[in-house]
Amino acid sequence: MSRSADTWILTAQCPSRLGTVDVVTRFLKESRCYITEQQSFDDHHGERFFIRTEFRPLEPDFDAEAFQAAFAARAAEFEMAFELTAPDARMPVVIMVSKADHCLNDLLYRYRTGQLPIEIRAVVSNHPDLQPLADWHGLPYYHFPITAETKAEQEARVWEVVEETGAELVILARYMQVLSSDMCEKLSGRAINIHHSLLPGFKGAKPYHQAFEKGVKLVGATAHYINDDLDEGPIITQGVEPVGHADDPEDLVAKGRDIECMTLARAVDAHVARRVFLHGRRTVVFSR
Amino acid sequence: MSRSADTWILTAQCPSRLGTVDVVTRFLKESRCYITEQQSFDDHHGERFFIRTEFRPLEPDFDAEAFQAAFAARAAEFEMAFELTAPDARMPVVIMVSKADHCLNDLLYRYRTGQLPIEIRAVVSNHPDLQPLADWHGLPYYHFPITAETKAEQEARVWEVVEETGAELVILARYMQVLSSDMCEKLSGRAINIHHSLLPGFKGAKPYHQAFEKGVKLVGATAHYINDDLDEGPIITQGVEPVGHADDPEDLVAKGRDIECMTLARAVDAHVARRVFLHGRRTVVFSR
Amino acid sequence: MSRSADTWILTAQCPSRLGTVDVVTRFLKESRCYITEQQSFDDHHGERFFIRTEFRPLEPDFDAEAFQAAFAARAAEFEMAFELTAPDARMPVVIMVSKADHCLNDLLYRYRTGQLPIEIRAVVSNHPDLQPLADWHGLPYYHFPITAETKAEQEARVWEVVEETGAELVILARYMQVLSSDMCEKLSGRAINIHHSLLPGFKGAKPYHQAFEKGVKLVGATAHYINDDLDEGPIITQGVEPVGHADDPEDLVAKGRDIECMTLARAVDAHVARRVFLHGRRTVVFSR
Amino acid sequence: MSRSADTWILTAQCPSRLGTVDVVTRFLKESRCYITEQQSFDDHHGERFFIRTEFRPLEPDFDAEAFQAAFAARAAEFEMAFELTAPDARMPVVIMVSKADHCLNDLLYRYRTGQLPIEIRAVVSNHPDLQPLADWHGLPYYHFPITAETKAEQEARVWEVVEETGAELVILARYMQVLSSDMCEKLSGRAINIHHSLLPGFKGAKPYHQAFEKGVKLVGATAHYINDDLDEGPIITQGVEPVGHADDPEDLVAKGRDIECMTLARAVDAHVARRVFLHGRRTVVFSR
Repeated sequence: MSRSADTWILTAQCPSRLGTVDVVTRFLKESRCYITEQQSFDDHHGERFFIRTEFRPLEPDFDAEAFQAAFAARAAEFEMAFELTAPDARMPVVIMVSKADHCLNDLLYRYRTGQLPIEIRAVVSNHPDLQPLADWHGLPYYHFPITAETKAEQEARVWEVVEETGAELVILARYMQVLSSDMCEKLSGRAINIHHSLLPGFKGAKPYHQAFEKGVKLVGATAHYINDDLDEGPIITQGVEPVGHADDPEDLVAKGRDIECMTLARAVDAHVARRVFLHGRRTVVFSR
Repeated sequence: MSRSADTWILTAQCPSRLGTVDVVTRFLKESRCYITEQQSFDDHHGERFFIRTEFRPLEPDFDAEAFQAAFAARAAEFEMAFELTAPDARMPVVIMVSKADHCLNDLLYRYRTGQLPIEIRAVVSNHPDLQPLADWHGLPYYHFPITAETKAEQEARVWEVVEETGAELVILARYMQVLSSDMCEKLSGRAINIHHSLLPGFKGAKPYHQAFEKGVKLVGATAHYINDDLDEGPIITQGVEPVGHADDPEDLVAKGRDIECMTLARAVDAHVARRVFLHGRRTVVFSR
Repeated sequence: MSRSADTWILTAQCPSRLGTVDVVTRFLKESRCYITEQQSFDDHHGERFFIRTEFRPLEPDFDAEAFQAAFAARAAEFEMAFELTAPDARMPVVIMVSKADHCLNDLLYRYRTGQLPIEIRAVVSNHPDLQPLADWHGLPYYHFPITAETKAEQEARVWEVVEETGAELVILARYMQVLSSDMCEKLSGRAINIHHSLLPGFKGAKPYHQAFEKGVKLVGATAHYINDDLDEGPIITQGVEPVGHADDPEDLVAKGRDIECMTLARAVDAHVARRVFLHGRRTVVFSR
Repeated sequence: MSRSADTWILTAQCPSRLGTVDVVTRFLKESRCYITEQQSFDDHHGERFFIRTEFRPLEPDFDAEAFQAAFAARAAEFEMAFELTAPDARMPVVIMVSKADHCLNDLLYRYRTGQLPIEIRAVVSNHPDLQPLADWHGLPYYHFPITAETKAEQEARVWEVVEETGAELVILARYMQVLSSDMCEKLSGRAINIHHSLLPGFKGAKPYHQAFEKGVKLVGATAHYINDDLDEGPIITQGVEPVGHADDPEDLVAKGRDIECMTLARAVDAHVARRVFLHGRRTVVFSR
């Protein structure tokens, strides 16, 4: 169900233990919050519990701060980390790109039409090419060129933009530079990359050319949180597209664009809807 | 997660009201039952609440009868209907067929290998053709021929088999006779049919021939609960398969077989795992 | 294979008869044209033959006019209609829209980046809303409002635009007005509409709302040539998207957008690549 | 179009050169053979030409031997290898299995119902488990146990079965032993293996467990010709299935079965319909 104008989201996670669901649902009931949708999962491998709840406060004067303060006391007993998301929340975002524009174009469309509840604070690139696209959408565009010598400096400037804009999410929409380990760590759990292959197949550079050489009959895309192991971050969404013997590498590039856009958009949508939990090298995704 | 040997399922539904989740989860906690997976949904259209919970009793001497008796008292206050399903439950099933054997063959394979937690008590048909297949699996096969005159009588005998075998689910695995309104009512919510089109497209007879005439580029299959409105029962699962200009009606028939098998098997799997709730003319399906 | 800069397309159709392939391939060989890809299909239902050939002239001074004149003589014997398409052909197109912008936005992106070999000559709408989008792409936008009284007049103006721009294809990218029979006839085989359902399911208005009422588990989109029978024109491409019980009609609308864009883009791509043949109430589509 | 009772298939390949299509189609016309469907592809990477033609002889006394002899003379000039397949051809096949029965069960069903035009001459296994299944279908079952010491000897016996039965295709339907390089070479282009991952991801043992560790959101299956590089043979077909965080490795195993069966069946179907051409490390597949 699309969240209506009065629907909040409460997400939480903690070590596995009896009563983890109860502590959430009882508090909501006592707070006269009406649960419209709830999913929970207890991972017996990692012994960790995850829950996502959509609810509507029944009283008109719902006080989010008081709610959080009161719940924090109960959550503490379970070592439970939680987050409350308001109905009108729009996550502040920075998008990083290089020269390919399809993912950026797609995100900007979903942003402009309100399909994605994000607020794009800046577009950052190591190339000037996509500035007109950002301009048309009235968005600041930062061009930070990069060379072997200036890599560290460029990253510092990117980080400045992230900090100053208050971005909670960085989207690497076909950004073709490898981030440093330090940057990856700073952005852990809040930077989503789209890789143009079905990971773990075809890591690294030119995956479509690798796919052509191998003669695969499906190409794909993988959206994942970045970590310091290139193309090895926890996977959020994956998509595929059939290809054939007559497709040259450039055809695979062209055919892959749509599935890259869709796969990235779905990952971002799930992330901002608080449907994704980072869980070690994997993710928990409560699908709609 | 595949249910382990000690995982029970509790499903429930009731009119929408504050506290519906809480009454379930609080009781489970008090009963020292550990929730491993839970999904709930509150339908604001129908003002009805649905919940499905998988849990493991932490105490070795879990008493299902006592659990149900105790929970019934609490559920009554919410007009909540509920069902408790044991870890080793195998739903007793009767399968109805005519001449086409692909869905039956598929179900028998999943049954024989334990993939589907059902216990097939009988195969019933208006034709003798599929007896050898039932025989090989050691299953009783009832051949009740049907004519315009004997239709009511035949249905009575089918009903006898359902009653005597204690079947909780009837699967119409390409059974090509229309059931009477009376029979549909008796089997409401516990008879699943596979129709070989993407309903509501191509209702009635020879849907693949209709699809050929129309020149569609996708054919499909729909598994649904039966009701007395032919091919209009609440949909559980649907699947599709691409087709092309070179496909004759017989090709569509052949290409559709796999998707019919898969779509029916998924519906049955969801039903026996108590993932499906009948909700007026629609269904609520908590997917895995 | 993506057509390289020197690859021509020859398409043809005629009544079924011995030698239809031979007349094409022999002529190409004699003309020293090198066939890189060829597909033919002889429909035994309609007794009609279809062929599509991609070829590279081996001589540097390929004369398209002379080629056509020479081939016409041979084709005549087979009552064969044919078309020769140059490597750099860009089909002139008029796009018609109402208020929804997702399909237009998608087509404009593919146009701007050269993915679709079309040349958009105008955007025509019965509403002013999408003018800024057309403006940014530097395209003429014609706003022809429509009322019950002005319908005929508006269509006349649309037709004028089609004529004056020399458009060979009209794309109805979520144009929400029914065209007159006369207009449908004039545009026969060269106007593609996107309908937001899996036809023949949910014809007419508000198909997603119909789909919600029916409780389907898949929604879809259908791109088809228009004819004077509403939503009954010959189908080119269809696509689907899974939906669930928690999706309200507005969610179906939102979830359907991507598949509408993709389905329409694929139909347009196939049409301009001369992969689609109109064949009575059906189409022949030589897929890549 | 499903091949009717009088439709022959002619396939051919040769080095790229002007006139390759013409030599085929002209001969067919002169032989009064009516082409119903034709696809050709010229690979500019490998400079090799491939063609597949379905045709109906118009004269009642079509002489296949004379046809081949006459065409051989023309083909020789183009160094063209060709194959003529009769309407009623059923390819003799040997199936190899270990303990998992789903692919075998699926192939046997398609064989028994005539969906796959093959003639299964024997089932060979390194385990006795699947003998009852073969027995029910009236098929010889050879149990050749295997140990490190007897591996060469066992392969020799397998080869004997292949030779003696005249098998033209060997299907490795989840056969869990690696074949020797010698055996792979002998079976080059006529042995199809199903690997339970989307190659090149997750080669080798226990791919579903690897997929679980990696946290992928899609699992898949790959049907390929074997070669002496394990899981690296030319790919024919691939299929995928969505999975989620709640799926344990055993769930992936269960969910993957259907897609393995479908992917293998499609590869075998394409191979026996002469739609697949081995082309170095890749394949050309003329899809329907």
